[in-house]
Order: sequence, then structure tokens, then C-alpha cells
Amino acid sequence: MPVFEPRDPNFQERIATSFANQPFISLLGCELQRVAPGEIDIRMAFRPEHAQQHGYVHGGAMTAIADAAAGYAAMTLAGPGTGVLTTELKVNFLRPAGRGALVAKGRVIKPGRSLNICQADVFEEAEGEDIHVLTGLVTMMFMPGLEG
Amino acid sequence: MPVFEPRDPNFQERIATSFANQPFISLLGCELQRVAPGEIDIRMAFRPEHAQQHGYVHGGAMTAIADAAAGYAAMTLAGPGTGVLTTELKVNFLRPAGRGALVAKGRVIKPGRSLNICQADVFEEAEGEDIHVLTGLVTMMFMPGLEG
Amino acid sequence: MPVFEPRDPNFQERIATSFANQPFISLLGCELQRVAPGEIDIRMAFRPEHAQQHGYVHGGAMTAIADAAAGYAAMTLAGPGTGVLTTELKVNFLRPAGRGALVAKGRVIKPGRSLNICQADVFEEAEGEDIHVLTGLVTMMFMPGLEG
Amino acid sequence: MPVFEPRDPNFQERIATSFANQPFISLLGCELQRVAPGEIDIRMAFRPEHAQQHGYVHGGAMTAIADAAAGYAAMTLAGPGTGVLTTELKVNFLRPAGRGALVAKGRVIKPGRSLNICQADVFEEAEGEDIHVLTGLVTMMFMPGLEG
Repeated sequence: MPVFEPRDPNFQERIATSFANQPFISLLGCELQRVAPGEIDIRMAFRPEHAQQHGYVHGGAMTAIADAAAGYAAMTLAGPGTGVLTTELKVNFLRPAGRGALVAKGRVIKPGRSLNICQADVFEEAEGEDIHVLTGLVTMMFMPGLEG
Repeated sequence: MPVFEPRDPNFQERIATSFANQPFISLLGCELQRVAPGEIDIRMAFRPEHAQQHGYVHGGAMTAIADAAAGYAAMTLAGPGTGVLTTELKVNFLRPAGRGALVAKGRVIKPGRSLNICQADVFEEAEGEDIHVLTGLVTMMFMPGLEG
Repeated sequence: MPVFEPRDPNFQERIATSFANQPFISLLGCELQRVAPGEIDIRMAFRPEHAQQHGYVHGGAMTAIADAAAGYAAMTLAGPGTGVLTTELKVNFLRPAGRGALVAKGRVIKPGRSLNICQADVFEEAEGEDIHVLTGLVTMMFMPGLEG
Repeated sequence: MPVFEPRDPNFQERIATSFANQPFISLLGCELQRVAPGEIDIRMAFRPEHAQQHGYVHGGAMTAIADAAAGYAAMTLAGPGTGVLTTELKVNFLRPAGRGALVAKGRVIKPGRSLNICQADVFEEAEGEDIHVLTGLVTMMFMPGLEG
């Protein structure tokens, strides 16, 4: 794993504020579980409205938290006043996710001046070992001047 | 464009029922706008809770409707009693999406016995020409015996 | 389709020169078939050494020409002295490609100051209609100062 | 990491034979470095004909060995007489690759009856620590009856 030097010493506070200001994240009912340089964990307890027609969590909901975890992982490395936008993402669904809480782990695997390549994995909490339900790759772009 | 022969003559009714039974789709507030062999359009009027922190529609919400459109496009070609699961998806975000309604167009570009490769595009409705905000590729897998 | 205004009036000559200077492209035996703003076609006649173990063209060879077509499509829009690097690509293989010549079509679908999102499709030439064997999405990044 | 049980006790011999029969792999000049259940390493010493116009290894060549490593990783888990085809792949290029040998590591992260999701990473050999130049995700499909 690379070692990351945050450019903004207040990155944790900044991310907490940004996270709290995302209506879509609130709609899904997510909480920020871990914030470290290059690393974010987001947890989403199961709600019946996350389900698709078979009762599994909708792939769109899983992808949304994977994207959010990757985006904030990149934002831990952004300079003050620099925001982050997703330019592209790709996910593979490994198994259907049932009614356990999901934890999305975003990790920067290649930081850059403009583009940050991140890995995102989602696990369903289970007794014993957590279940790996999604893996993905996400490109995040720094947007100087885009606050929040 | 390939010409598609639905295996299930009741595909339109079946898709309407499935769509109405998806809690996550209801949470987002989507409507089915077009159902034809290999082609689905889903429309999502803007709601403030779709937004990320800058006021744009969250990429996760856009991806969710792209995935749904691709999935139902594949389902138009499924046999009776056969369901569909997304195995993987990849999207590129072309422009931020503002407060206009979004229309996701899912199209099967390569049907198969098991895997269906679909293209998904999302447009923001605008005066004049609609704005292309997302393009993606999605693989849908037929699941015999998975109703709904 | 968007209408593109090349920033470099000599883009055609520049691309022809660059193409001729790519050893890997020469190894594969490709020719530049079409060069227009935002659009490139590259043709690769079948050679036995393109094959994988079943006699089909190796997916890596198909991906290579898709990448090359997308990259040069982006380069048609680059300013003088600006090069192009692929940041990421995703392809779906639609059908195995046999012994017909392959044509890769790269098209810019979203130009940008830094990132260009391109679609790439590969067709196998056949009597009657060409066969669509690969579709993909590629992100190309402008690299100011990277000549060639 | 999951623990894998090969279905074919002769998978190592079978993979060595298949590898030796791939003309495109021979054209690139690859060798099989590691064959274990769910894991393949392929090494490609630098040759001038792998280069693109700036002297870096062409992204298509890097993608080809990533694809090959993922494919053989899946094949370690295939039953006798079952072949493997790539259905889709996605790669992110992390850094340009220079003149060092490249090693592609394919790992099955989710085995399946039909689809196998694999991770592929390419490293450039260097004094000290190897350089991570590519990461990707690849879906491999088992093809019963497709020998070789």
C-alpha cells in the first residue's frame, strides 16, 4: 500500500461536513465509519427500500455507496478548496446482497495531481466472515475551486 | 440495430409488474416510459434528495437508473419465468446533471442465451436538445427460475 | 453526433506520422483507414499470429486496435504539441472474431480540455453485413508537451 | 483470499500446453511464470516492438497480458474439456511502463459455475520495489466442450 500525505490537514472535518450535506447519501441512510488518508469506509444498514424486486439490495444502491467511498477516499488527498468528481466507474457484482448491513471500502491505489484511481469493495456483514459482494474501480478527478 | 424476437409474449405486462415491485426504484421515483423488444426508457424527475453535495444528481442515482434500464431491456428478451441479474456495469459520466428530469435508455446490443450486453445512456431533458450525461455498458445474466 | 473543431490544422499529417512510428502497431500490421475530426478507423488484416489457441483473434489484439482507434480519435482534437495517453478502457467481447479483417472505429463522444471519452467498436469484415465483435469505452487524457 | 479446489488434476499441464499454442502470446514473447489454483503470473520481457510512439509499452500489449493472466487463472479452476473465453475486461493504466520486464498477475476473486471474476495487475520489474502499472477486472466464462 502506498503511504499518503494529505494536502489538507483538516481533511477529516471537511469530509464529515461534505458527507452530511449529501441528500442522496442521507436518502440511502449511510454513515461514515472510517476516514484515513486514502481510505474511507461507509456503512449502510439494510432498509427495505434498498431492495430490488427479489429482495436483494439493488445494484444501484451498492454502486452508489461504492462510488461514495471511492470519492471520499480521493478527497482525503485533495488540497483545501479542491473538490472531487467521479469520471467513470466499473463494478462487478460478486454475489447478491441480502439483509445484512453493507460496508463499502474505498481505497486510493494511484494518487495523482488530477486523477486518482481508486478501488472500491462492498462487503455484507455476516456472522463469521463478511461476504464480498462487489468489487470495482473508480476514477476520481480533482476539481480545484469546487468546494464541498 | 438487431431485430429482437421476445420469447415471452407477455413481456410488457411482466416488466410493468416487476418495475412496480422494486422498492429502490420507487424510492428514486422512476417511471417506465418505453418498453419495446430490447429497448427500455426510464424517466426520473428531479428531486432534491437525488443530489450530491454540489446540487448535481448523485452519480449513484444516475448509475442506478442506467442499470435498471439495461436490466429491463434484457428482460424484454427473457423467456417466461426467467429473471435477470446484473453481473457488471461500467459508466462514464460525461457532464454533471442538473435539475432537469433524467431519461435512461437501455438497449440490448448483443443478446445471448445467458449473457446480454447492453448499452445504457442517460440524458437530461433540456429546452432544445437533451443533454447526454452518462454512457455505459452493462452485462445482464438470465436467471432461469428467478421470477419477478 | 457532436461537431468537432480540430485545434491543430495539421492533425491528419501528425496522426499519420505518429501512427507510422508505433512499433506495436506495426507488429500487429494495422493501417489507418479513416482520419476525421473525432473519428478514426483502423484496419487490421488477419494474420495467423493474431490468434489465440482456438484460432480466433486474441482479445488482446482486438483491444489493442480499439484502444489505438480511440486514442487517435482523441488526438484529432488535440492542440499542436499535445499528446494523448489512455487512462482506462473497458471492452465487451460480443462474438469471437474469425479470419476476416478487423476494423476498429474510434469516436469521441465527449471531448474535453483534459479528458476525452471515446467509444470504440470493432467489426469483422464479412460478406453482406460486417460483424460487430467488440464494443468499448475509453478515456483518453491530453498530455501537453508530449509530442508524437 | 478464497481457497480453490481445481476440478481438473492436470490443470498445470493443460495450461502449459494451451499457453504454448497461442500464436499471439508467442508474438508478444511471454512466459508462464506461476501456475497455481486461481493464480497465474505471466512475464513479458521488454522488446522494442512492444512500444508505442513515445517508447512506453503499448497499452494494448499490457492489456493483452493482463487478459491472458486472468484467463489462465480462471482456467486453473475449469473442469476437463472446458475452455475459457473473456466476456469483458476493464483496465486502468496507473503509470507508463518503460523498458523493464512486465509481470501480469491474474487472480480469481469470485469463482463460479459459469462466470469467474478475476483481478489482473501488471507490474514493471525494477530495482527495489516493482512498479504497479495496470490494474483491471476481467470476467471469464467457462465454455464446456471448448478444448485447449
